[in-house]
Amino acid sequence: MNKKIKKVNAAILIIGNEILSGRTQDKNIAFLSKWLNSKCGISVNEVRVIPDIEKKIVSNILNLSKNYKYVFTTGGIGPTHDDITAQSISKAFKVKYEYHHEAYKILEKYYGKKKFNDGRKKMAKMPRGSKLIYNPSSAAPGFVTKNVFSLPGVPSILNSMIENCKRYLIKGSKIYSKTINLYTVESNIAKQLGMIQNKYKKYVEIGSYPFFRLGKIGVSIVTRSNSISKLKSVNKDLIKLIKLKKIKILKI
Amino acid sequence: MNKKIKKVNAAILIIGNEILSGRTQDKNIAFLSKWLNSKCGISVNEVRVIPDIEKKIVSNILNLSKNYKYVFTTGGIGPTHDDITAQSISKAFKVKYEYHHEAYKILEKYYGKKKFNDGRKKMAKMPRGSKLIYNPSSAAPGFVTKNVFSLPGVPSILNSMIENCKRYLIKGSKIYSKTINLYTVESNIAKQLGMIQNKYKKYVEIGSYPFFRLGKIGVSIVTRSNSISKLKSVNKDLIKLIKLKKIKILKI
Repeated sequence: MNKKIKKVNAAILIIGNEILSGRTQDKNIAFLSKWLNSKCGISVNEVRVIPDIEKKIVSNILNLSKNYKYVFTTGGIGPTHDDITAQSISKAFKVKYEYHHEAYKILEKYYGKKKFNDGRKKMAKMPRGSKLIYNPSSAAPGFVTKNVFSLPGVPSILNSMIENCKRYLIKGSKIYSKTINLYTVESNIAKQLGMIQNKYKKYVEIGSYPFFRLGKIGVSIVTRSNSISKLKSVNKDLIKLIKLKKIKILKI
Repeated sequence: MNKKIKKVNAAILIIGNEILSGRTQDKNIAFLSKWLNSKCGISVNEVRVIPDIEKKIVSNILNLSKNYKYVFTTGGIGPTHDDITAQSISKAFKVKYEYHHEAYKILEKYYGKKKFNDGRKKMAKMPRGSKLIYNPSSAAPGFVTKNVFSLPGVPSILNSMIENCKRYLIKGSKIYSKTINLYTVESNIAKQLGMIQNKYKKYVEIGSYPFFRLGKIGVSIVTRSNSISKLKSVNKDLIKLIKLKKIKILKI
């Protein structure tokens, strides 16, 4: 039985000078990629990090939203002058940048009418037609505009909202993955690994990553595929190679 | 006395499926950006993460090398089948992919003639005309092709090589930065902060970043500029605002 495989891809657009200056270590790329992969069968095929500059945001949104099924932006949806994601996406898609009624109500209720100042009101402004991504930790919602999902930059808040993206996503086929950690060096297996990759090139992606653990050098072989049977076959070939070369497997 | 300010920019191209799958948390973006900023006065204006696919590497190298003074690639310069950075850059610039004599000698000496197998020899193959970036930790050199610097993906090895890039770089004017951490919320200062940013928009970049520390919410105000005097002026204005609003400064 050969179930049809459905591939769905996405890009991530990290908006923020603080990542580009090296001041802040990004954590959203790894979190989003892992979540999309494991929970939605969606592969992230490209990531870009760009500054808080409207022209840059507009051109990248247009480019990525055309080339990928989904785009996830992080950052720039807060109350300050450097938060310009919503207005830039409005420009990109040529739709009005205006109050989203439900978002306005959510924020007004959260802060109370008296404390609902201009900065906070700004967080209710979105591209016309956006759908909300609810935020259980700090109220200010993210939003979906066409195929673009806009999330905040603060990792803990982003993480708390991510499940609320699911309703808007079409899932892809599950992506299976297996890792074998070996006490060897890459060059010892490079040739045979290339041959195995070649044999399965249509179905399985094989990655080879050196690691250092307790003063020893090793290699992680990571195989990924939409087909569990192909993944098993490739791993059988890998085990054969490992036995032939008398390489020790590291159990983690 | 108004010293002329020299702006130099760069882009980073992270090549690696392991970052896109979320398996590996990238550390090279923050390290490289910080180093370029603080040691060379070079601003990183864009980062891209792409898969180990030749076509993608070629198009991104061409695009980024045209639009930025320097491009730094990480990953894909090892001995295995998924290490295709050197051959892709050769294609991008239409130059021969061939053994670099000095790199070949370095690696042959490091491994010894007997253990210098095909995988290891591959690490001596580079785009014709490349200059070497010496590697004090594991011998295999990085290389500079036109304005593109190719470094390994393993952070500890990359870090050990970075100083060897300096000889090929033209430095920019020093970028000064100051951070003030405040016990307040962004919306409390958003309006005035926007006004201050507007006043100094040509000279100083002001960023506002929420943080959480010991259960309290705060905001880091980061100012960056090539001019130390403008940075001092903007920080005077910020201190005025902080006093006016009776905000507590957090000393870290």
